[in-house]
Amino acid sequence: MQQPKKIAIVGSGLVGSLLALYLRKNGHQVTVFDRRPDVRKVEFSGRSINLAMSNRGWKALREAGIEEEIRKLALPLNKRAMHVNDRPVYFQKYGKEEEAIYSISRGVLNRRMITLAEEAGAKFRFEEKVWDIDLPNATLFTGESEKSVWKEYNFDLVFGADGAFSRIRHKMQRRSRFNYSQHFIDVGYKELSIKANPDGTHKLDNSSFHIWPRGEFMLIAMPNLDGSFTCTLFLPFEGDISFESLDTEEKTEAFFENYFPDIKGEISNLKKDFFRNPTSAMVTIKCFPWSYWDKVALVGDSAHAIVPFYGQGMNAGFEDIQVLYRKMEKYGDDWERIFREYETERKPNGDAIAELSYRNFIEMSSKTADPDFLLRKKIEKHFSDRHPELWVPLYSRVTFSDKPYAEALAIGDRQRKIMDEVMNMEDIEDKWDSPEVENKMVSLIKNEEF
Amino acid sequence: MQQPKKIAIVGSGLVGSLLALYLRKNGHQVTVFDRRPDVRKVEFSGRSINLAMSNRGWKALREAGIEEEIRKLALPLNKRAMHVNDRPVYFQKYGKEEEAIYSISRGVLNRRMITLAEEAGAKFRFEEKVWDIDLPNATLFTGESEKSVWKEYNFDLVFGADGAFSRIRHKMQRRSRFNYSQHFIDVGYKELSIKANPDGTHKLDNSSFHIWPRGEFMLIAMPNLDGSFTCTLFLPFEGDISFESLDTEEKTEAFFENYFPDIKGEISNLKKDFFRNPTSAMVTIKCFPWSYWDKVALVGDSAHAIVPFYGQGMNAGFEDIQVLYRKMEKYGDDWERIFREYETERKPNGDAIAELSYRNFIEMSSKTADPDFLLRKKIEKHFSDRHPELWVPLYSRVTFSDKPYAEALAIGDRQRKIMDEVMNMEDIEDKWDSPEVENKMVSLIKNEEF
Repeated sequence: MQQPKKIAIVGSGLVGSLLALYLRKNGHQVTVFDRRPDVRKVEFSGRSINLAMSNRGWKALREAGIEEEIRKLALPLNKRAMHVNDRPVYFQKYGKEEEAIYSISRGVLNRRMITLAEEAGAKFRFEEKVWDIDLPNATLFTGESEKSVWKEYNFDLVFGADGAFSRIRHKMQRRSRFNYSQHFIDVGYKELSIKANPDGTHKLDNSSFHIWPRGEFMLIAMPNLDGSFTCTLFLPFEGDISFESLDTEEKTEAFFENYFPDIKGEISNLKKDFFRNPTSAMVTIKCFPWSYWDKVALVGDSAHAIVPFYGQGMNAGFEDIQVLYRKMEKYGDDWERIFREYETERKPNGDAIAELSYRNFIEMSSKTADPDFLLRKKIEKHFSDRHPELWVPLYSRVTFSDKPYAEALAIGDRQRKIMDEVMNMEDIEDKWDSPEVENKMVSLIKNEEF
Repeated sequence: MQQPKKIAIVGSGLVGSLLALYLRKNGHQVTVFDRRPDVRKVEFSGRSINLAMSNRGWKALREAGIEEEIRKLALPLNKRAMHVNDRPVYFQKYGKEEEAIYSISRGVLNRRMITLAEEAGAKFRFEEKVWDIDLPNATLFTGESEKSVWKEYNFDLVFGADGAFSRIRHKMQRRSRFNYSQHFIDVGYKELSIKANPDGTHKLDNSSFHIWPRGEFMLIAMPNLDGSFTCTLFLPFEGDISFESLDTEEKTEAFFENYFPDIKGEISNLKKDFFRNPTSAMVTIKCFPWSYWDKVALVGDSAHAIVPFYGQGMNAGFEDIQVLYRKMEKYGDDWERIFREYETERKPNGDAIAELSYRNFIEMSSKTADPDFLLRKKIEKHFSDRHPELWVPLYSRVTFSDKPYAEALAIGDRQRKIMDEVMNMEDIEDKWDSPEVENKMVSLIKNEEF
């Protein structure tokens, strides 16, 4: 057990709320600061991609004792629904029969988690912006503006759960020997939506993750409990077909008519929403260290923001908290050691999921229509079905296991090398499901030098 | 010609002062802000590595009309003096007979350049710290502290020449889609010095760059006009032999006695200076864009700080200013275009010299004692002497030419591939200067597929 401490969490998002629950388990006094208003009291919309909770996320919620509560808010998706032009919709199972990712609206989940954390005894201070932190003293300064008179709060420990543009990290970053990078991709996204049918049912299959891949851009849709879908359009910021070029209602309508004719009519308020909802950027953030002495630590996006193309941002953040808790159990009141072991264990995994997410972005934008790529996936699937003990696909390892991301990345790289060899076999198109290919794969897998 | 503008430069270092001179050439009204006191009125020492002015630097000074003035402050170094244990000092020419780099003390140079800029009509405001900038309005805010009442200055244009930890860039960095990275290396440095002989002469050869390579660490010394040498000890921050482990005068003395016996006695005040002078960190900083509309642009370290192992930091910054001036000549009052073309041309070159400098750090710390590496260098030198038109060594291309850094990097990579082939030849140790090797190199160079 630990000595109860006075702890501040900056940021009342998903990871901050979960951390509050875990800290309350150990009897700490927890205050959560957020510059935004209480998300339970305002409309939440316009710039969010639906969340895909998967194994790592559920595991962390289970240990916090709130898995059942959150399950009620989620819809299982066991397959992708691919909407390719000039072809009927077709489906791709995510994994084995029972394996699914779970669609949850960010707003719905965040509201529930704040309430659960409050019920567990955490205090929330909304609309109170942290402007500065005295790192060695774990002291926070809040106020109306950067130049106004500030209020000072002394804590024993401070956690930065304040997202990709973290104020806490920002202060750490000004110190010598703090490594940091922020890298934006040239694609932005915009939220759109599909309303429920009048009887409250969904307009598309509600156990599928819907994708309209179009090469340089794509549309996705994920179902909500209320019968609606949250859609996200990913599109380059600049260029021939881009957010910049779609600058009138006419052009936008023509774009949807041209590329998404099967769904255009269902998107509600397309012309209004397209111009009312903001175009958001996506960034990969890496940094190190994640802590300052035994006083301050970063969790979630503030330590490792990633692009959303693997659906792992929230899951990775939740896993941070569980790893941190393991260290708390192991090292008791030695917070310096807790932080050091936490950041040392998590950093390579944060880097790995950042890399995997970025690669998925490249893959989705350039390879979904490439026949070589599709054949590769087909061979992998075929082999994995026959030899599940020899070949867990990368996606499953990331999404349905709790093995470290860094391990998934390393094994994925080895699998890619094996598939490069397989794809080089003569007439592979014709014999992809032959015993010859199967035997070749088995022997490559067993060849330790490979 | 350009319309005269009201221009602020933040930072009165070397690049800021040179920019002031260039802007005055075109009749602009120039104010230079610096948070530090006037370097001409304070002692300047303790944390500086001597500068190595080379071709790019001289070229930029020439066009500013101050080359002759600055030549007076510099000592030409046409060779490295290698101090290897158990072996007499030996020399390595930098290039052809007349090719040299020039040692200048940072303080001496900075003082002179500020005076020259002042004489050209630039105004300097020392001890005035810029806390904030309104980017779209090119407005600067200065004051005693972050929370004090600020003074407001309106300009037409603002340049950030405020170094690796630039306040101007810092503000740009908080905007969406600004890419940024800062990466510290695990080696620090400390300034030491060797006094002149009583008659004012140098204690070591004063036309050499002196190096004591020791694998994981090294000492260098560069001569000053007054007969002294500025020494720099590069050493890991942590580890068995490190700044952290040298925590007493006794350990420090024993370290120098052990590794630098030939020079230890000459280093003045070793025990005092080692503990009085700060240990400084080294960082590579990359970012993009380098400008904001037609209002603000970054130059020098604020846009591309690099580690000092190629001696190109100042040279690269000076070259920025010359490139910027070319664009001013070409595009007149279209500052948006000037900035866009400047950053587009310079960014790949900034990245290239960052990469080359970092590689030199790796090379210096791990390879200087590697026989393979030394043989490689010997073969290159031999071949280059016989075929100067076919093989300009990378170091010469960077240091003695004004071809873009990115081109030097690309050609250097090709040369490395050629040398990899050559080093794979059987018995290369014995036949390195044979016609067989020479012919092989000629044919590889002429093979365009290679």
